[in-house]
Amino acid sequence: MTDLDPQQVDGLTDLGPETFRAALHAVADVMADYAARVESYPVFPPVEPGSLAALFPAEPPDGPAPLGRILDDYRALIEPNATHWGHPGFMAYFATPASAAGILGEMLIASLGQNTMLWRTSPIGTELEAVVVSWLRQGLGLPPEFDGFVTDTASTSTLIALAGARDAAGFASAGDGVAGAGAAGLGSPRVYASAEAHSSIERACMTLGLGRAGLVKIPTDDAYAMRADALASAIRDDVAAGRRPIAVVATIGTTSSTSIDPVAAIADVAAPHGLWLHVDAAYGGAVALLPERRGPFEGWERADSIVVNPHKWLFAPLDASLLLTRRMGVLRDAFSLSPEYLRTLDRSTPVRDVNEYTPVLGRRFRALKLWLMLRWFGLDGLRRRIGHHLELAQMLAGWVDADPDFERLAPVPFSTVCLRYRPRAVVGREAEPEVAARLDDLNARLMDAVNRTGEVFLSHTRLAGRFTIRVALGHLRGEERHVARAWELLRREAAALG
Amino acid sequence: MTDLDPQQVDGLTDLGPETFRAALHAVADVMADYAARVESYPVFPPVEPGSLAALFPAEPPDGPAPLGRILDDYRALIEPNATHWGHPGFMAYFATPASAAGILGEMLIASLGQNTMLWRTSPIGTELEAVVVSWLRQGLGLPPEFDGFVTDTASTSTLIALAGARDAAGFASAGDGVAGAGAAGLGSPRVYASAEAHSSIERACMTLGLGRAGLVKIPTDDAYAMRADALASAIRDDVAAGRRPIAVVATIGTTSSTSIDPVAAIADVAAPHGLWLHVDAAYGGAVALLPERRGPFEGWERADSIVVNPHKWLFAPLDASLLLTRRMGVLRDAFSLSPEYLRTLDRSTPVRDVNEYTPVLGRRFRALKLWLMLRWFGLDGLRRRIGHHLELAQMLAGWVDADPDFERLAPVPFSTVCLRYRPRAVVGREAEPEVAARLDDLNARLMDAVNRTGEVFLSHTRLAGRFTIRVALGHLRGEERHVARAWELLRREAAALG
Repeated sequence: MTDLDPQQVDGLTDLGPETFRAALHAVADVMADYAARVESYPVFPPVEPGSLAALFPAEPPDGPAPLGRILDDYRALIEPNATHWGHPGFMAYFATPASAAGILGEMLIASLGQNTMLWRTSPIGTELEAVVVSWLRQGLGLPPEFDGFVTDTASTSTLIALAGARDAAGFASAGDGVAGAGAAGLGSPRVYASAEAHSSIERACMTLGLGRAGLVKIPTDDAYAMRADALASAIRDDVAAGRRPIAVVATIGTTSSTSIDPVAAIADVAAPHGLWLHVDAAYGGAVALLPERRGPFEGWERADSIVVNPHKWLFAPLDASLLLTRRMGVLRDAFSLSPEYLRTLDRSTPVRDVNEYTPVLGRRFRALKLWLMLRWFGLDGLRRRIGHHLELAQMLAGWVDADPDFERLAPVPFSTVCLRYRPRAVVGREAEPEVAARLDDLNARLMDAVNRTGEVFLSHTRLAGRFTIRVALGHLRGEERHVARAWELLRREAAALG
Repeated sequence: MTDLDPQQVDGLTDLGPETFRAALHAVADVMADYAARVESYPVFPPVEPGSLAALFPAEPPDGPAPLGRILDDYRALIEPNATHWGHPGFMAYFATPASAAGILGEMLIASLGQNTMLWRTSPIGTELEAVVVSWLRQGLGLPPEFDGFVTDTASTSTLIALAGARDAAGFASAGDGVAGAGAAGLGSPRVYASAEAHSSIERACMTLGLGRAGLVKIPTDDAYAMRADALASAIRDDVAAGRRPIAVVATIGTTSSTSIDPVAAIADVAAPHGLWLHVDAAYGGAVALLPERRGPFEGWERADSIVVNPHKWLFAPLDASLLLTRRMGVLRDAFSLSPEYLRTLDRSTPVRDVNEYTPVLGRRFRALKLWLMLRWFGLDGLRRRIGHHLELAQMLAGWVDADPDFERLAPVPFSTVCLRYRPRAVVGREAEPEVAARLDDLNARLMDAVNRTGEVFLSHTRLAGRFTIRVALGHLRGEERHVARAWELLRREAAALG
């Protein structure tokens, strides 16, 4: 490669097709090499903040570099300094493990270069998205009243849902809705979610002009699930005070502990008030592919909108978030405007221009990788993998429960285990402030020690005030040996801490 | 490939590295084949809305398919039904032509699988983004007071800027700003942009709860540039009526005609009122890489925020939008919240967690492709290509001006030519309603006829009420022969229409 690049770059257009072919194969090998060696890297790189920017020149390059040198720099400066989400020891956040099929899909997305903002700018992009959305909806066991589309992340999907709720709340006196008149006439709108709900809900409230004050955090029960009775009384109080309830977000699989809000009971509370019910199943939704495991999803079919992220437990590379809704028309009212230069001339046949349902205009062809992955795995292939991860999590939970020096801090309905080191000597005294503080400190140090081995990468949360180590399984490359090793390291480092 | 896929897929994890290598090379060839044959496709596929979804099974696949068959289906069902943004005859919208280097960058992004939401989730992703932002800032000739980050599209960049303006407007009585208290206390906030400004500004106002009513469209002059005097009087009127001006958006390179708002004059008007000045240079900004062509950018260094899209005229594949700002702290106030499970333990050294400045949490490693492209082309390589496109546009403008049957409808400061067919027989009578209507009809039919050749793909707008054909150059693969052919087709089909 090194030889032919400079003169190619010297022209005024792009690489010729055969030079491009050689470059594609060179990069394909870099990618395959990485997949082969990812387990040899520490999951989290041993680097200090601020040390990496200094590896690169402060001034931009003026002339071109040959591809061979660029790829050498990539391997030397970039690859080793990544947090290796593809490493099966990555158990810190819900995995976004970029399956082989998903990576191949991203390659074709880049190659075909579609902008799926309008039907006209990508007929296949628009129509294949509808096909894939229908395939996933069927796989999840939801009725055909649910339509939808693919966004970048759950943050955006939830923002869109709450924008729909904001407009649907029907402030008819304001003329043409909040999209038209703005939020100033809203009075005091209120959105409800559990105290364990994801930060994206609060952020969506901030973005939409509802403010942090617009989000009411409902207390949870001992299993970190929203209390429907507390929701009912919060709504009653707000109505009595002249505030305006507009939406409730129920989570199936919270980020902290993967807890499950009682969707059916929440729907019963929300319905008489006409609240928009949004279900955040960004992580947990994958499990609904398994018909025999749909218990936690009871009632979600009553939702106005549901988010499930293929880029989490369905093995798609970041980004791909599925937003399903019964109320496409409301979402269109919340976001659509059609200036002349986007108005196409083919309106004799109605077409869907997906951008009109979202806050952004330009859209990648994310449906292409989802199509490729669904063909590659088949629903059955996805089900078997998810089922395997559910088993691995139960296995780890069993080990924790059987160890007198460890404590499991939450139920394990999905693939994440919340635990802490709690030496048997302090059993019964955990609530004493001094013991509680010592346990928090011990577990922070334990997590740090385990992460420093480089073999696994764990994160933490707080449950009922306690420092809690999260072991998030569900990695496509995760096998029993990786879980066993994580457990071995936790016990070894705990013993070393005393 | 066909033989070994099924048993691979039959396992519980992912492909082994060497099978993955073979798959990567197979897809690399599909990509190279596409690059070699893209000009053999009609730019816009001859398909009817609704006909493509029917090519795929209505029900999702249950079992796996071998990669060979999936790629066959890709080539047969998907590739031919795309709008070919990579075809050099694509002159409809500002090109997003996915340079070879950008495509290679997307491959590495998918391979490395970073989520750059936190420093901790991608140290190299976070720090390389800062490097690339600095490189681009320097290339654009902006002072070091501008910091920033990369978002998906200009819609998001502009939304972030206006959210900053909303919070910075300082409704101190509301407590902790709009992010905290919501937009209800805002009264009647007002954002100003020209009547030719991009729809993303209006959509951002809708999303942010400012409403369509919150956007004031300022009249333009004969060159479709915002009239600073009209802006001044609109602000005066709003203040007198008790409304609250918060921001003005100046555009350098509007979507319709690539017109240029007078940024310095607008800054002079905005400054005494303390308005946030956002500059939308999503398309035009690329030209600021050429120091000798920075005339249209005079005053943009006074902006609070600027958006330039590398995925437009800087040849990055969708998506990549650069948001530069002097006011990072305000953006953080508008969007940040840090729940415990995202709070990292390495705060002894301050790190930047880029998600805190945006409405979304999960973030692709877009800086990686920008780094690769900047290395590949060098600033000089980008400058020479942009300069070439500026020349091509002047060439076409010259041909239009010299043809008595055509009319150029706007200045050509960048790479887009706005024109219409106007037979010499009607010169002087264009304003007569019947002639005007006939010209609109003729040009709609002309555009349609040219697009049906499949050799080029043009779009339209309306300028001063007139149906206007837009020829958007700036395609990385665009050469003089493509521009000449487009002009030849316009003249040929116009003659055929009579």
